[in-house]
Amino acid sequence: MRARDLGIVIGDLAPGPLNAITDVAGVRVGHTTLISGDGPLVVGSGPIRTGVTVILPHEGDPGREPLFAGSHTLNGNGEVTGLEWVRESGMLTTPIGVTNTHSVGVVRDALVAAGMTAGGRARPWSLPGVAETWDGYLNDVDGQHVRAEHLFEALAGATAGPVAEGNVGGGTGMKAFGFKAGIGTASRRVGGDRGGYTVGVLVQANHGRRSHLRVDGVPVGREIGQDEVPGPDVPAPAAGSIVGVVATDAPLLPQQCRRLAQRAELGVARGGGGGENDSGDFFIAFATGNRGLQPEDAEAAPPTVGLTMLNDNHIDALFWAAIEATEEAVVNALVAAETMVGRDGITFHALPHDGLMAVMGRYGRAPR
Amino acid sequence: MRARDLGIVIGDLAPGPLNAITDVAGVRVGHTTLISGDGPLVVGSGPIRTGVTVILPHEGDPGREPLFAGSHTLNGNGEVTGLEWVRESGMLTTPIGVTNTHSVGVVRDALVAAGMTAGGRARPWSLPGVAETWDGYLNDVDGQHVRAEHLFEALAGATAGPVAEGNVGGGTGMKAFGFKAGIGTASRRVGGDRGGYTVGVLVQANHGRRSHLRVDGVPVGREIGQDEVPGPDVPAPAAGSIVGVVATDAPLLPQQCRRLAQRAELGVARGGGGGENDSGDFFIAFATGNRGLQPEDAEAAPPTVGLTMLNDNHIDALFWAAIEATEEAVVNALVAAETMVGRDGITFHALPHDGLMAVMGRYGRAPR
Amino acid sequence: MRARDLGIVIGDLAPGPLNAITDVAGVRVGHTTLISGDGPLVVGSGPIRTGVTVILPHEGDPGREPLFAGSHTLNGNGEVTGLEWVRESGMLTTPIGVTNTHSVGVVRDALVAAGMTAGGRARPWSLPGVAETWDGYLNDVDGQHVRAEHLFEALAGATAGPVAEGNVGGGTGMKAFGFKAGIGTASRRVGGDRGGYTVGVLVQANHGRRSHLRVDGVPVGREIGQDEVPGPDVPAPAAGSIVGVVATDAPLLPQQCRRLAQRAELGVARGGGGGENDSGDFFIAFATGNRGLQPEDAEAAPPTVGLTMLNDNHIDALFWAAIEATEEAVVNALVAAETMVGRDGITFHALPHDGLMAVMGRYGRAPR
Amino acid sequence: MRARDLGIVIGDLAPGPLNAITDVAGVRVGHTTLISGDGPLVVGSGPIRTGVTVILPHEGDPGREPLFAGSHTLNGNGEVTGLEWVRESGMLTTPIGVTNTHSVGVVRDALVAAGMTAGGRARPWSLPGVAETWDGYLNDVDGQHVRAEHLFEALAGATAGPVAEGNVGGGTGMKAFGFKAGIGTASRRVGGDRGGYTVGVLVQANHGRRSHLRVDGVPVGREIGQDEVPGPDVPAPAAGSIVGVVATDAPLLPQQCRRLAQRAELGVARGGGGGENDSGDFFIAFATGNRGLQPEDAEAAPPTVGLTMLNDNHIDALFWAAIEATEEAVVNALVAAETMVGRDGITFHALPHDGLMAVMGRYGRAPR
Repeated sequence: MRARDLGIVIGDLAPGPLNAITDVAGVRVGHTTLISGDGPLVVGSGPIRTGVTVILPHEGDPGREPLFAGSHTLNGNGEVTGLEWVRESGMLTTPIGVTNTHSVGVVRDALVAAGMTAGGRARPWSLPGVAETWDGYLNDVDGQHVRAEHLFEALAGATAGPVAEGNVGGGTGMKAFGFKAGIGTASRRVGGDRGGYTVGVLVQANHGRRSHLRVDGVPVGREIGQDEVPGPDVPAPAAGSIVGVVATDAPLLPQQCRRLAQRAELGVARGGGGGENDSGDFFIAFATGNRGLQPEDAEAAPPTVGLTMLNDNHIDALFWAAIEATEEAVVNALVAAETMVGRDGITFHALPHDGLMAVMGRYGRAPR
Repeated sequence: MRARDLGIVIGDLAPGPLNAITDVAGVRVGHTTLISGDGPLVVGSGPIRTGVTVILPHEGDPGREPLFAGSHTLNGNGEVTGLEWVRESGMLTTPIGVTNTHSVGVVRDALVAAGMTAGGRARPWSLPGVAETWDGYLNDVDGQHVRAEHLFEALAGATAGPVAEGNVGGGTGMKAFGFKAGIGTASRRVGGDRGGYTVGVLVQANHGRRSHLRVDGVPVGREIGQDEVPGPDVPAPAAGSIVGVVATDAPLLPQQCRRLAQRAELGVARGGGGGENDSGDFFIAFATGNRGLQPEDAEAAPPTVGLTMLNDNHIDALFWAAIEATEEAVVNALVAAETMVGRDGITFHALPHDGLMAVMGRYGRAPR
Repeated sequence: MRARDLGIVIGDLAPGPLNAITDVAGVRVGHTTLISGDGPLVVGSGPIRTGVTVILPHEGDPGREPLFAGSHTLNGNGEVTGLEWVRESGMLTTPIGVTNTHSVGVVRDALVAAGMTAGGRARPWSLPGVAETWDGYLNDVDGQHVRAEHLFEALAGATAGPVAEGNVGGGTGMKAFGFKAGIGTASRRVGGDRGGYTVGVLVQANHGRRSHLRVDGVPVGREIGQDEVPGPDVPAPAAGSIVGVVATDAPLLPQQCRRLAQRAELGVARGGGGGENDSGDFFIAFATGNRGLQPEDAEAAPPTVGLTMLNDNHIDALFWAAIEATEEAVVNALVAAETMVGRDGITFHALPHDGLMAVMGRYGRAPR
Repeated sequence: MRARDLGIVIGDLAPGPLNAITDVAGVRVGHTTLISGDGPLVVGSGPIRTGVTVILPHEGDPGREPLFAGSHTLNGNGEVTGLEWVRESGMLTTPIGVTNTHSVGVVRDALVAAGMTAGGRARPWSLPGVAETWDGYLNDVDGQHVRAEHLFEALAGATAGPVAEGNVGGGTGMKAFGFKAGIGTASRRVGGDRGGYTVGVLVQANHGRRSHLRVDGVPVGREIGQDEVPGPDVPAPAAGSIVGVVATDAPLLPQQCRRLAQRAELGVARGGGGGENDSGDFFIAFATGNRGLQPEDAEAAPPTVGLTMLNDNHIDALFWAAIEATEEAVVNALVAAETMVGRDGITFHALPHDGLMAVMGRYGRAPR
């Protein structure tokens, strides 16, 4: 179940056929979901409510064929490895992993190893991109249960096509705005006069306080109180984090990718995110519209590479595609996620679809 | 007339007594408004629809007593002088001027001169902060009609107390979302358990496309069509820019000011701003909660200065104060501005208050 | 007289035919030098020791044909207008002016006006780049003697070919390392296997303390004491600033330009610059190797533009070209500048050529 | 053996008693050195020439008592985890690990675990700082031989006092300028009139090409040819990386720490580093002069914290302390490292002390 299945339509642009990041040709997504155990937390034993999600930016190997990329930070209380090389070179050279906060390292080193075993590096070193949010309310996060094999499994299972949302992969134990959340995705296509490009977004949503939740501008979080849907029985839950990946087939240069990544922040803001102090909010954008950026045999290759660049006069459409897709991806994460009971019996409830639509109706938003 | 006079209340926090940037003690605002001539554009002659606004960050001289400050850029198609020194030192050392794009230089050099005549510099050089947006739809912007005396006049007239909004000062010839706009301001107070601090915002709003305008989440721009309120008869109007100044009496360090400035971007996003390619969107935040940062006699002074810092655990309240105040300041600019006919008869119409409230009502927002 | 005329050869790469920024085809430089009056300072009257230098990045109009560009800041106690748009768009859209600190505004607005009169803008607004250093030891800087006509004159007189150095243009009243300095330039060519590109640098050198001066690694400043060449009779002279422009004909993308600009910092460091607190040290790099970045009729143009990019595997040679050319440009500024007496009789002495070469000889550097 | 033991004295300021980062009170350093096996590379088996170094920023737990910190990047072809939180908060909240490129993740997750077991976190998540350079010429870097226990061992063994240099810890398999290198350290004290503060630097030096090596400005790398000291028999060795940690007891705010970190770049430049494309050059600076930045019981604590700030008028002395200490730390790494034979018999030779001093003498640098 997704937002559009409920009749919630965000923004003006049309989504791609899957309304997912995989509408950008070549992009693949894989999830490994780890759920086991119940009851009191025993660090190292569980309960386990976590996983890893991997986004492959094209059908080949980004270690051999990088893509232009850029990033943006809303609030930096989090980790994304590999960011410095993206910023310096303007290129993405590895798949992107998303997992829990305390398993970033193992996933990062596993991506290094995966590149080696596949022969997938033009250079003898690798600087993988791995992002995180913190699932410690439900998961034994200090148990560090994600292992290299879980990353390998996510890589092996990565596919184009529809993307599972909610309690899957890195999003398994996540929550947002006091409801259960996790992975969400959406896409937009810009008009043919703007090049007909697609922008797809995937988020791992773990951010926001209940009272701030907005769905298409409607103050849903204010309207669905703790009496209607209780929040978890924990003291002063922190606001949490959101990480997002923005993909496009437009031929964007690195600085254009960076600008696209910043527009994801605007989409988060429209949904009620505030980049709170405890939040690690990062967005990486990559563009598949240029390939062959790094010839394999660097020394033998000619010193220059031919490229295409989107004329900036047409970039606003892409900006709005990123804004809309990010805003909708967060709603999709909330709509797809199901109530989960985690460690110590802590429960995050799903956002009730009927309650949600009742509020939308009261605020002039009949299902579209 | 302001948004709250119409019954529009944005967000959860209470405004200060003036609901203006001048709720931060010591902050003063002055406007010089230049309106003359009508009819066809004759570059150098007019018509003139422009001005300059100046924000003094405290009751004294920031050249002798700097304040901690930080900045954030949403989209950099614009100019703000003085930014590099704010970034490097973390301090604001001059008043901030806001004017039209092609008069930044004269205002900047006039602020240099003003500092000299007042004896107001601890150092023999000055790096004033001057921001701009482009009023060339209504104003003979290429005529560069702002002169040094206009800045001096704005400085001399700067006062604490209520702040004029709409078609005044630097905002005189500005428009936003296809309606007449200009200067707007708002403020918020955080709870006593968070320190009881005030955050005030002043914007010069010249940004956004009609269809994107949102007021408290309501798609006002989509609902008030060109048939109801025509836009200007010009081809393909660019999206334009917004600049904002965020003031607080909280004892923020420079990196905290920078973070506060970034939250203004979130407020802009909530109102329908997209940071479009033609937009120069900048926010400067300063904090009056620490003084004495630069002893006058630098060499004789002891090598250290005593300070106070807001504990980051309490900063979220300030973040939301900046988000809400920015969102409301933009609405105030729209509500206060009156229809203006400019060069070549180009007209930007005011946002009609009754039409606005009718839409708000249809979307579940009775006047509060 | 230049460093190489004395037998000082910095680095390993060969310079271009002019050993100047104008070795990059299309680059033109113009100076307006203002020297008048003597004796005690009367603010507004003089003495005047200042000027303006302008660098045109190609033979046409950058407002109609921007170039890719990037910037880097070593220490931000200074002003460079136009930087935000360079950072956001990755493009340079105006000539670059260099003048004194308190005349940045007038030069900036004059560049706006120059673009208008020439019809030289693809868009109706302009965001010119103007940098500065502070010449107030010798010049009546508070008198703000630079006027728009001086910028127009520098533009009109800008030529390819040899570049005047030392006490000219914006460098007229500048000093470095306690000696008279000002404008300096140098260039380098990379090998044909690296593309055969040229890198040219122009600096306005006003930075550094005597004891830190190094020429090709030799501690010249430590060796030429105040007894041999007195410094000015002023209390505690501040360290001052350096600004630099790096040009190349290599097809660099914006992020590559930014990286090139950062290497100018390394050249400054090798010469004894420390980016001191009172220093405004900025470098802008642009690349002429791609043109046609912004089609004139933006809406009618196809959405994409074809480009060429230097393969990063070949960029180190350009990095070292920028390092070497910057280091040598500073020495050229010192070698070319002649002793100047300014306001209040303050004197900055030239670096004595014989004294310099005597020190070089003692440190194993016979003239090459 | 260190540079000063040979009579090489860099710069003007006096070192601390240990001439090491541990001259900053409270700073501790621990190394785990892994050397085993010989002969052909068998990935996963060896030979192993690697390790991990850990820097503890004060005598307590930075997870409970953070320090102000800032960072700077010269060239971003590398990884430093934890940087985003340092940038956002201006605080260092964990020890800093330094290891090889492909073991960053395991060290990062081990630092997470170490914080948990020690109870050493004020918050339930951790974002450790781990930097790297690439030792794959000598070490089986793809074998990922560093394990969590090696990090725990380095932590347990960390001490104040003299710091082992050269082939130890993370520096075990590193080289610089074609010679064997690794860990190096140095310190400087500023005058009592500047506060009497200490700046200490520790580098893991793996950067630079032979011909660029400069020692105190002397072109040592150009003078000691391959005939005198052969480089390794590998094709086209990449330039490699340098990472550095700068510590001070001065009460610097975060933006001042960032500025201090940038001065390390100047020290690298003076020694012949160019921030080449294959180089990951990062510097983190922290300041112990303020404590108590994050009260343990955040909600109960008062909303503000009292601080001290160094007056910027005195910061130049610290800048030069960082420049000098970085330049000398690199030389110390070269002087201390001993010739090492690694995988496949690849050999990096030590910089010969007698050959070095012979060159120094020819360039006017008798031992001081």
